[in-house]
This record gives sequence, structure tokens and C-alpha cells, in this order.
Amino acid sequence: MSATRAQPGPPEDGAKPSGEGARPQRGGREEPAGGMGTAGRSDTLEPPEPWCLRETGVDRARLGRAESLFALSNGHLGLRGNLDEGEPRVVSGTYLNGFYESYPLDYGERGFGFAEDGQTVVNAPDGKIIRLVVENEPVDVERGTVEHHERELDLRAGVLRRQLRWRSAYGHRIEVRTKRMVSFLQRSVAAIQYEVEALDEPLWVTLQSILVANQDERSGGEDPRSARAIGDVLDPRLAVGGDRRAVLCHATKRTQLSVASGMDHVLDAPGDCRVSLDVEDDLARVTVSTRIEPGTPLRLTKFLAYHWSSRQTVEWLRDQVDASLEAALAEGWDGLADRQKRFLDDWWERADVELDGDPAVQQALRFALFHLIQAGARIEGRAIAAKGQTGTGYDGHAFWDTEAYVLPVLTYLEPRAVRDALEWRWSTLPQARERAAQLDLPGASLPWRTIHGEECSGYWPAGLAALHVNADVADAVRRYVHVTGDEEFERHQGFDLLVETARLWAGVGWFDRVGTFRINGVTGPDEYSALVDNNVFTNLMAKANLVAAAEVARKHADRAAELGVDEDEIATWERAAQAMYVPYDDALLVHPQDQDFTVHDVWDFAATPAEHYPLLLHYPYFQLYRRQVVKQADLVLALWFRGEAFTDEEKRRDFEYYEAITVRDSSLSACAQAVVAAEVGHLDLAWAYLREAALTDIDDLHHNAQGGLHMASLAGAVLSVTNGLGGFRDGDGIPRFRPRLPDPVRRVAFRLTIRGTRLRVELVPGEARYVVEDGEPLTIEHDGERFEVGADVVARPLPEVPDLDPPPFPAGRGPGCLGPAAD
Amino acid sequence: MSATRAQPGPPEDGAKPSGEGARPQRGGREEPAGGMGTAGRSDTLEPPEPWCLRETGVDRARLGRAESLFALSNGHLGLRGNLDEGEPRVVSGTYLNGFYESYPLDYGERGFGFAEDGQTVVNAPDGKIIRLVVENEPVDVERGTVEHHERELDLRAGVLRRQLRWRSAYGHRIEVRTKRMVSFLQRSVAAIQYEVEALDEPLWVTLQSILVANQDERSGGEDPRSARAIGDVLDPRLAVGGDRRAVLCHATKRTQLSVASGMDHVLDAPGDCRVSLDVEDDLARVTVSTRIEPGTPLRLTKFLAYHWSSRQTVEWLRDQVDASLEAALAEGWDGLADRQKRFLDDWWERADVELDGDPAVQQALRFALFHLIQAGARIEGRAIAAKGQTGTGYDGHAFWDTEAYVLPVLTYLEPRAVRDALEWRWSTLPQARERAAQLDLPGASLPWRTIHGEECSGYWPAGLAALHVNADVADAVRRYVHVTGDEEFERHQGFDLLVETARLWAGVGWFDRVGTFRINGVTGPDEYSALVDNNVFTNLMAKANLVAAAEVARKHADRAAELGVDEDEIATWERAAQAMYVPYDDALLVHPQDQDFTVHDVWDFAATPAEHYPLLLHYPYFQLYRRQVVKQADLVLALWFRGEAFTDEEKRRDFEYYEAITVRDSSLSACAQAVVAAEVGHLDLAWAYLREAALTDIDDLHHNAQGGLHMASLAGAVLSVTNGLGGFRDGDGIPRFRPRLPDPVRRVAFRLTIRGTRLRVELVPGEARYVVEDGEPLTIEHDGERFEVGADVVARPLPEVPDLDPPPFPAGRGPGCLGPAAD
Repeated sequence: MSATRAQPGPPEDGAKPSGEGARPQRGGREEPAGGMGTAGRSDTLEPPEPWCLRETGVDRARLGRAESLFALSNGHLGLRGNLDEGEPRVVSGTYLNGFYESYPLDYGERGFGFAEDGQTVVNAPDGKIIRLVVENEPVDVERGTVEHHERELDLRAGVLRRQLRWRSAYGHRIEVRTKRMVSFLQRSVAAIQYEVEALDEPLWVTLQSILVANQDERSGGEDPRSARAIGDVLDPRLAVGGDRRAVLCHATKRTQLSVASGMDHVLDAPGDCRVSLDVEDDLARVTVSTRIEPGTPLRLTKFLAYHWSSRQTVEWLRDQVDASLEAALAEGWDGLADRQKRFLDDWWERADVELDGDPAVQQALRFALFHLIQAGARIEGRAIAAKGQTGTGYDGHAFWDTEAYVLPVLTYLEPRAVRDALEWRWSTLPQARERAAQLDLPGASLPWRTIHGEECSGYWPAGLAALHVNADVADAVRRYVHVTGDEEFERHQGFDLLVETARLWAGVGWFDRVGTFRINGVTGPDEYSALVDNNVFTNLMAKANLVAAAEVARKHADRAAELGVDEDEIATWERAAQAMYVPYDDALLVHPQDQDFTVHDVWDFAATPAEHYPLLLHYPYFQLYRRQVVKQADLVLALWFRGEAFTDEEKRRDFEYYEAITVRDSSLSACAQAVVAAEVGHLDLAWAYLREAALTDIDDLHHNAQGGLHMASLAGAVLSVTNGLGGFRDGDGIPRFRPRLPDPVRRVAFRLTIRGTRLRVELVPGEARYVVEDGEPLTIEHDGERFEVGADVVARPLPEVPDLDPPPFPAGRGPGCLGPAAD
Repeated sequence: MSATRAQPGPPEDGAKPSGEGARPQRGGREEPAGGMGTAGRSDTLEPPEPWCLRETGVDRARLGRAESLFALSNGHLGLRGNLDEGEPRVVSGTYLNGFYESYPLDYGERGFGFAEDGQTVVNAPDGKIIRLVVENEPVDVERGTVEHHERELDLRAGVLRRQLRWRSAYGHRIEVRTKRMVSFLQRSVAAIQYEVEALDEPLWVTLQSILVANQDERSGGEDPRSARAIGDVLDPRLAVGGDRRAVLCHATKRTQLSVASGMDHVLDAPGDCRVSLDVEDDLARVTVSTRIEPGTPLRLTKFLAYHWSSRQTVEWLRDQVDASLEAALAEGWDGLADRQKRFLDDWWERADVELDGDPAVQQALRFALFHLIQAGARIEGRAIAAKGQTGTGYDGHAFWDTEAYVLPVLTYLEPRAVRDALEWRWSTLPQARERAAQLDLPGASLPWRTIHGEECSGYWPAGLAALHVNADVADAVRRYVHVTGDEEFERHQGFDLLVETARLWAGVGWFDRVGTFRINGVTGPDEYSALVDNNVFTNLMAKANLVAAAEVARKHADRAAELGVDEDEIATWERAAQAMYVPYDDALLVHPQDQDFTVHDVWDFAATPAEHYPLLLHYPYFQLYRRQVVKQADLVLALWFRGEAFTDEEKRRDFEYYEAITVRDSSLSACAQAVVAAEVGHLDLAWAYLREAALTDIDDLHHNAQGGLHMASLAGAVLSVTNGLGGFRDGDGIPRFRPRLPDPVRRVAFRLTIRGTRLRVELVPGEARYVVEDGEPLTIEHDGERFEVGADVVARPLPEVPDLDPPPFPAGRGPGCLGPAAD
């Protein structure tokens, strides 16, 4: 908590950085791009606390990660954790779910069916900024001396707090205290409470509360995982203001989406203030100048409201913004904060995961759950993007990760959000049907990556060919319906999704000479292979998809008739599912990831230097694809998602085989490895991977948290507990548990809500305890034993775990290799 | 030969198109893009003549093809067959081999090792243009009335002649007679002789002889086979002129290559002329105005000279241009034309292929040989591009086609050109070694497409992955050395090429558990498959490459030591060659194109409408790659190139199997099918494919001749005769023949020069005749019988041919389907 030194910026306005402030702050720890082992909890992150994430000081080198970690959102409106004064910043972000711009995709050589346009999330007008000038010196963490700087993300309050004690080069001292919130209840509203206090002497201060459009963007360079910079995309349409309120209206250039953004202010000042308002096309600014005495702070509460539409006029949108601002003013900061807290109390009651024995993991799990509800709470017709609303990584696109990782968590905690997310998928079926037709395929082909529903992947072998996304969505539909009993959704949106994806599979695969159903030329989850035949994960997921479609088609005959599904078609789906090819290597006694995988040579891990990870940034796909090297769980994901297709012995052998060649260059991998490691009995590994999944963003293990948080990995951390330690599976209607408790963990507790019943599962050494916290009794299965659980705790001994030797790992890529640096 | 009507252009200068001229000329025959069966010999091409290609009229819809057919070049300098007056035109082209511009390649999503820059042939300053104004009316085939228009490409003279009889809207009649030549002897020089004559009355005429830089380009749109438009690429550096000479100097913007272009003129005028000269940065113009009487034409002889360099200053280049112009003036048109004729006499003596029974094919074969010598005669350190110097198709890049198709012809006819072409490959080894290192491969990785040596493929699955290019180059080296006995080349350039490519294969392939050598994840010749394991063609070509490298490494121990080749490395090459995997389908009793090819489903040809060919313009690679559908001979190419690896029975079965699934969407296919059809005994098919190969460009069977002629197909036509009808193979040192004479052919004769001996092979019904026309006696093999041939004809009966039923074809894609329209 000692005073840290500010990093020098270029002197502006003739201001000189103070002599001491001229030394860089991060102490010479350089972070190599894509390297390994140097990331980790930086000096500025404080030791873990159970219900908050706290940072002191300003780590200039990790500022982007902090912007992601401290992001606030409600699924509809997201604000990155930028500093109040707006700079320094890595990426300034204000995101409205579904508000995007498109741009033409270029290719070295174009081919038929290549995606035509990219889509990228737009940085909406930024209302987070409140600049402060003290005695004519701008407050800036890179000038003067930062005596104390602290930010605290309160996971129960849903508020980001900040405290800054700062001394100007001339010696004036002030303290700034701010709170920031994106309301879960008033979905279009965010609020900031800003207090500034003079510490030693009366000071003249000026606050500039800003709403600015078309902020400078920067490109992510060559890293394919980052976002594309496409310049100013917002055309000004209307700019109005009066008193302390201003509203700006803009429209995107290509997609022609309109947005209205507004701010209003409540001023709580100890004395007279001069207040002025400027309104320009791309800037609105309320300026407050006054003299403050020590002990009597100046407080400004700023309310922000955003509305956007593809159809409404800017006039109407402007009215909505004014209405939202009025409602926010009426409720006030305290009212909003109170309801925010109650919303989260309710969430934590349903969702909390307790883990004793590792405070960092306990914190990380709650951090994960907080960001998951932030990502999903109010999406209402839009997608949950891979980064939620925490950054522009992957251009703000949604991928299969949402259905495969995020929804399996939310289905048991916040099913309304899952229905919303799946309704979004359903709403994109017209584009997906059109895409399928273009590709000469029946049914619908859901996009690999998109915001609005059109395929935006600019690299088809890892986009279009990764058809498993369709089965992943179908699986999420099946799970949602099964867990909630939402028959109405099953009949309508779910039905359409299941049928159209099943049709796709029927068209993609074929019955060979001996009647086996084969799916050739696709790409599975592992992005270090592509265009393979009979990827086991894909085939098994497609099989489940076909079965699920056949079931609903028989169940809802009227809907089947409506979509033209006849008995022949259903029979074909059933026959394809029955005859689905699952390759097996009889020599190695393992399942190959795809038909030819195990007859490829194994990547030379010993010859691969540590700094060459992630491999995709240092080797061509050509070399990766033709070798046995796995970026992320693929066959192991099949062992988890489609466990019914494998014996316990197969699972163990397969898991160990793939451990030796899996490099975890994707954040989607660790949790899957944790879950299957736990199942087959590698408890040390399970724990190591659970930790890795949980700490992915907080410790920036993949060195790209600045682009936004990895929603799937956050969800994966939770799944590592429920599916991994809890051994929870929900395949056949009865929740099944085969719990595991690795050594360092003294207690784990988690909740699942199934058809309205909230079950609590608690694991302590030697024992698993089940109890229904809310709702009707529930039949469950513990290690093969089936029994009913009600309001009384039922305890069972933990199943035996075999004593296994740890499998080999790729040189330098074993568990923990992604952990924080040793320094 | 009747007067044709000009097509209306937009009236300019107040000129009105004549009433009759307002009707379009092509009579309503619309050419659908990529369709089938509507191409063909247009009205304007005259019936075939043995030694020339003649066109009458102007076919506006096929103007681009005519520009390609009538292109002149010497391998160093190329002029497209644009009309003298410059317009109408499709693509104006003046090409200097190796003179190119680069541009950044963009990608929807970039990956490691993706080619960074594209390269494209530059349209050098155009000196072909001579515009004519008659009594203030510009002569233009789209205005007034074209009473007669005729162009004649004289294959023995190496001259393009043109005759235009034209009547202005006002009724003035003139005749223009021009001759154009690109000198084979004066490599930097082209010349045009332009005569204009008044027909009925004295007329005032003005000639404008033009040299113009940065002409308008047009993009080829979405067709991946066409060139990219990158705007004006020539920066002016110097523009000087005096009297009737002007020289312009330019430099390309990115590649910083300098070019000097100049023109000078000899005027032969019946009376006084007013002559003026304009010189601007991008334009030089000599204007001649005079009054001419009927019977006394005005004649202007224009000499053009070009020099370019990456190192020399524009001043020096300008001096070179002046020197070249002086030399051309000194020799004069007649001197240049005389030496041109003698050069070609010599060529035809070595190269002529005679074929009685089909005048169109006879003409096409000579047309092919003429364009092959045009493409190769004076390359001297540069490549032979896929289109030679006839157009900008494929951006002017060289591909494997050159080594696999063009050089196998030229090796026996013009070995000097082959040495030049292979020296160019050798000169790019530094780039290829760097590329290999980038890809984590040993040796050198030659580019899929390039002008300057760097990989320019913007789609890696069909670029980088098509590693067979390396073995194709090695094969051309082996053949050249073998046929010429050029030991000095073998020791140096050939050695380097063979060793570095063998090293690549040793690094790409691997010995599996049982010691088999496998090459995974590559793309073979067939572009409707990609990233396959153990492509038979690739594996067999790599095997030959490894064997050839081992042989030269043992032979030239000093060079081996210099490159660090030790006994272990040689032994590894030999072991890999020995253990090379050649997959075989035991159920179907055929060789799969690659390991998994025959377990894919067969493309649904019956459901594919005719207008969906070529498939690559109507279906995604995703669908093509995962099905049995063959764009172009691949396994069948292996049957031809590596025939020693197959029994006769295997060849027949394989050929027939692939006939059923080969759609010939590539012009590289027909000739290979012709050769193998002849070998296995399908003589009707052999003849049909030979015809198709021969007429590819003249009849525009692939609908893209406007982008330039298909050099590989032109060579393929010749190979269809020598390797197909002649059954010629040169695998083991003794030229072997197994001749076939299909019904329509009454006589075939061709020549091969082998180690200085020119052998003539003549086939007539029932008999093959062999004679040495020049040089020492030669041992040859006829149908397994070995004997010596000298100056006396040795005759042998043609081998028996089995009586085979024709195999099935893909619906609508059998032989002849690409033929001219029935109308």
C-alpha cells in the first residue's frame, strides 16, 4: 500500500513529470508476447479476498488486463474498467450488446462461399470519463505522484470502487473516491459517483464530465485473436443538451444502426459552483468548477443511459434516453445500489460455489460467477460473446464456447439467461438457412463466429468446417429443456433449432458401402487439426443432435408437419445416429481424435522452445495440422460431453494418451482436462487444471486478458468444480454424481437448480452431502446409487479413486506451466 | 470476308455511329461466365490453315481472347494482340519478364506463415499504339463501317499482320496494313510497320504514335484465376525526346524496379509531312500529318525498346534503350524480319509436329509450338509464367505447370530455354530456403506461385501445402540433365536444387511405427482435394526426387561435402524412397488418390447442373475437398509421370476409375488423360482429350483465354502427341515408344532431340517409323523391342491395342463436353 511512482508520459501543457515519477513502475519485468511463465498476479493485485478483487497502485504494463478484470456489465450494457479520467488506457470500451459495425473481408485469394463481411463490436460513446483538474493541473496517474491508488470490485454489491490519493508536481494533494455501477435492473443505465476532496488546503478544482464518440482505436496487430481496428464508425445524427444533461445520437456507417447516449448529473457541492455544458457532434461535456476545503468533498453523481436500434428513429431513441435518465435520477444512486445488491444476493443464493483450502481459487470462482451473471443477466435477444462485454477480443463475436461452456453453467443457475441466449440463436436461423443453402447443405448452418448471425470467419478451415457448433447449440437446447422443463420453448424455438441442425448433419454425413454413417472433412474443437474425417467429438455430438431431433419430431407431430419432417426423415436421422462411425485405434487401444489422427507423427515437443507457445503464433497451420499436437481438449471433451459412449477404462487410456500431446494453447482446454482428470482418478491433475482454469484471467495465463475476459474459461472454472470435483453429469434425466476431493481442498459446496429444485452438494474429506435447499425432493445418483434427497442432508462416502501414475506431458507444457512467474 | 458491322460505342466528339453500325455484331450469343458448351470457334476465326491463325471481322465479345491468341513475345518482352489504335481493348499488355509490383496480401484472418505480399506483372509503358485520324475522324472499329478486318498470325514468319478497310460515317475510305513483331534476336526490341492508304480520294490523315504509361487497369472480379488490379504502379522518373524519338523512365512504387521504354520512327511518306513530338511524364507521342493520294500509302515504321533493372539507374537504362533503338534502326524492319524468319525456320526444323486428319488440330499444334518458343526463347534468368507473356491471368505468376508440362516439351526441342528456366528456379533458392526455415522445414520450399521467388499464394491449403512443386522441379532437372548431358549444370545448379528439395521431403515425411515413410497433410495436383495424407502423385514424385538427389550426391562428392551432405543423409533419402508409402484400395482394386480418398462419398454429378461448372466457382472448397471429385488429373498424372510404379492392369483400372469422377475444370487435365488413355488403350478417348488440349485456347474451352494462353495446356497438346500417340517415355535412359494411332489420324510425325541427336518419329496406320534426322545413331525401344536407329528409317508394326469399353464419365463432363457450341 506504499506510494507507487507514476510512469512518465510525454510532458504536455508544459508540465514536467516529477523527478521521481520518471522511473518506470513495473520494475523491469517485461512480458514477452505469447511467452509462458512470466504472467501472473502482478504486484498491484492484492492477496485474494473471498468477495472482492482488489488492486493497489497502477501497473502500466498490465493496465489492459485490469480494464477487463474490472469491467462492469449486465449483458446489455458493458463498461470496461477504464480509469475515470479516461487515460492512460489500453482499450476504452462502452459496449451495447448487438450494436456492431461490419467491414468487407479481404482475402489473398478468395474462394466461393468465403465470408464476405466481418462484424465488429462498436465502442459506443464513452460516458465513463470524468476528468479532474486541480489548480490547473490535470490529475493523471502518469503525472505527479500517486500516493495511493486502489480499486475494488465488490462481487456482492456489483460496484467498482476506486480511491486515488494524488499529489501534483507542485505539491497540491487531493483524494478522489469513485463508485461505478452498471445496473442489473435498469438495463440501459450506468451510474458513477465521483467525490473529490482537498487534503491539506483549499483547492480550486474543475470536473469535466464527458460523453465522447469515436475515440481512438488501436489494432491488435498480427494476433488473430484480437480485434480489428476499422476507424471511426459513428456518424453523428443529433446532439442536444440543456442544464446538466446532454444526449448524442449516432449511426453506424455500414450497418446503419442508431444509438442514442445520454448523461445527466446530480451535484452535491459544499459551495458555489460554476457549471457549464458543451455539446458538439461527438462530444458532450459538463464542467463544474469550484473551490473545495479539506473535509468537505465535492460530489458529482453521473447517470448514463444508452438505447440503440436498427429500426427506430434517433428521435425516439433520444426520448428513450431521456426517459431512462429521468428514471435513474428518480431512483438515485442509493436506490440503484440497493436494488443492485438485492439482485446479487439472490444470484449468490442460487449460484455461490464455496471452496476451502485455496483462497485464490475461492476468489476466482466467485469472480467467475460474477462475470458470468454480468455477461448473461440482461441479454434479452442477443448473444453472449466470447469475451462477454469486457473487451473487443475476437471482435466481440459469439462462438460455440457460449453453448458448450457458459450455458451449461447458467442452465442450473440462471435459466432465463439461457433461454435468451438460445432465442438469439433461434433468431439467426434465417441467416443460417441461407448459409446452408449457399453451401449446398440442407437445414441450417450456424456461424462459427458472429454478432448478428452471418458467418464472419475469415478462415474457413477453422470456421465453416467446424460444424460441431451446430451440435453444440443443439446440446444446449436439449439441456435447457431437460433441466427447466420449458415445454413451450421446446415446441417452438428449440424444435426449430434441433430439426434444422439435424438436417444439416444428415446432409453432411453419408452412409458408406457397409452402411456406416461418416462425417468427412470437418474440423473439431481442437484448432491444431482441421478438415479431418470422422472427428470423434463431432460425430458423437452429431449423433446426440440427431437423436434429440428425432425425439422432439415424434413428440410434436404438428410442428414436425409444419417443418415438413416426415417419418422417412426421422428414420434417416435415427439410422444415421445408430450407424455413426466412431473410429478406434486397435493398435494403440485409444480413440483417435479423428480417423487418421494416430497415424500422424507426434509433434516434436522436445525441440519446441518455451517461447514458441502458443504454437499458432510461431508455426504454420500446415505443420500443426499434420502432426499429433492438440491445442485444446477435443477427444477429451468428447469423454466429458458424451461420456456415455466410453467405458471407464477407455476414458482413462484416452485421457492419458491425449495428456501427452495437449499443449493448452487455448483457454478452453484446462477445465475439460480438469473434469476428465477427476473422473478417471488423476486428482492432482484435476486440481492443477481447475486452478489453471480459475486463474486464467486474474493471472493472465494466456497473456491476452487485455482483450477481454475468457467467458468460457470462467464458466470452465465453475464446471471444473461441479462436473469435475462433483463428478456431476446430467445425461439421462437423473443428476449423477461421482465426487472427487483432491488433497488441497478441504471443502467444496455448490448448488444446482433442476426443474425448480435447488440442490446443494457439499464435499468434505471422505464424504459427500446432498440437500435440497429449495423446492421439491429430487432423485439423484451418487456413484451409481440412486436415492431421493429432500430438505434433510443425505451423506455418502466419497467413491474410491484408483492410484494412478501421472501421465507424461508435452515438454514444458504440463499442468502449472501456465502459472504465474516465480519472481 | 463480307463487311461486318461495328458495334456501337458511346458517341464521342459528336460523332454518330452510322445507322447500320448500331446493331451489335455478335448476334445474340451470350457467353455465360464459367458455363460450358457455348464457347468455341467464333465467326471471326477463319477455318484452320496449317501455318497461320487468321481472324476476320472484329468479335467484340471475344476481343480479350483474340488479344491473347495474337500476342507476340520472345520470353523477355511480350505484347498482347491489342488493336493498333489501342481501343477497344479488354486488357492492354506490354510485359517484361520479371518486371513486377508487389502489394500487401490481406486476409479475413491471418495465420503464421501466410504469404505477406502478392506480386503481379506490371503493364509496362505501351508502345503498340498508333492512332489514326482521317479527315478529323478517328479510325475505330466501333465507329463508321468496318468493310474488312483481318489479322493473321504467321507462325513461320513470327509476324502479326493486320488489314483494315474502313469507311468513315461521312464516307471516306481507307485501308490500313500493319505488321508487328517482337524480335527473337534483338531481345529488347519490337517493331511495327504501319501503312495507311486512301482508297477513293485524297485524304488528310494524322498518325499518332504513342508510348503511354499507367494505362487503365480493370479487375478480374471474383474469379480467383484472374489478376488483381492494383492501380497505377509506375512513378515517372525521366521523360526525354527529340526528333522522332522519345524515352520514358519509370519505377515501380513498392518493388522499386526501374524501366526505360523508348520509341523511334522511320517515316516513308509520299509527300510533305508535318511531324511533331510531345513528351510528358506518362506519355510520349509522335504525330505525323499529311495528305495522301490513293495508290501512294503513307508508311510509318516504329521501333520499340525496353530495358529494366532492379539495380541500374534510369540514366543507364535510358542509354540502353537509345542503343537498342539505334541497333534496330540500323537493322531495319526487313533485317529484323529476315532474322526472325531464319530463327523460326530453325525452330520448326527441330520442333514441328505434323498431324494429318484434322486440320484444326494440326493448326493448334503449331500454334502451341509457336507460343511455347515465344514463351521460352529469351527468358534468360527469368521464369516462364503460366500464361507466358500473353496476359495477366494468375497475376503473371509461374507455377509447377512450367516444370511439369512446358519443360518436358522444351527439353527435347529447345534445351537452352529449359536450362534458363531451371536457372531461374535455382536463383530463387535463397528465398526458398528462407521460406522452409520459416515453416520449420529443412532444405528449400519452392513457392507455389511467384514472379520473384517469394511465395505469393494467398490461400495456403492450395499453395504452401502443394509441396509437390518441389519434386516437379527436381524431375525437370533430372530430365534436362539426362536428355542434354549437361554435366556442368548437374554439378552446380541442378545439384543444389536436387539436394535442397530432397532435404525438404526428408523433413516433411516421417517413418512410422513399421518403418513406412509417410507424407501427411499435403495437397496434390488435384485442387478439389487438399491437406491429404499420402497423395500417391506426391509420394511417388518425392521418391524420385530423393533417389535423384542420392545419385548426384554420390556422384559429386565434393559438392555434397560443400552442402554438408553426408553418408547418413544420403542413406536416409534412400531409405525414405525405398519405404515410400503408396496406398492401395484392396476392396476397389484401385489406387486412391490419397490414403482416404476412396472412403469419401462420390460427388453427386447427376444433381450438378451444367452451369455449375467449373465447380470451384459454385461450391465451397468445404464440399469439394471431402468428396470424390477430381478437378484435374492427379492419380492419372502419377500413372503418366511415374508409370514405372504401376502395372499395365493397374493403369487401366485406375484410369477408368478416375474417368468417372474427373470433371476437367482445369486445363492441365485433358492432356494427361489423353496420354494415359492412349497408353491403356482407350484410343477414342485419347484422341478426344488430345483435341481438347489442343483447342483449349483457340476455342476458349475454359472461357478465360482473355487472361492469357494456357502454356501448360499448349505444351500438353504436344505431349498428347509425343507421350500419348507416340507412347514416348524417357524413364530409364533409353527412349521408349508404344505408339497408338486413333482412327481419325492418318499420319503423325514429331521430333525429339536427345543428347544432340534428332530423332524423327512417324506413325501411319499400322506402322511406326523411326529415323535420325541429325546426329549420332540412337538406341530406342519400340513396344519392348530395343534397337538402334540411324539415318535409315526403321519401321515397326504398331502394337496391338486391347478392345475396351469406354468408361463412365461424370454426367455432362465426358470428353467433348468442353467443345465449341453447336450453333
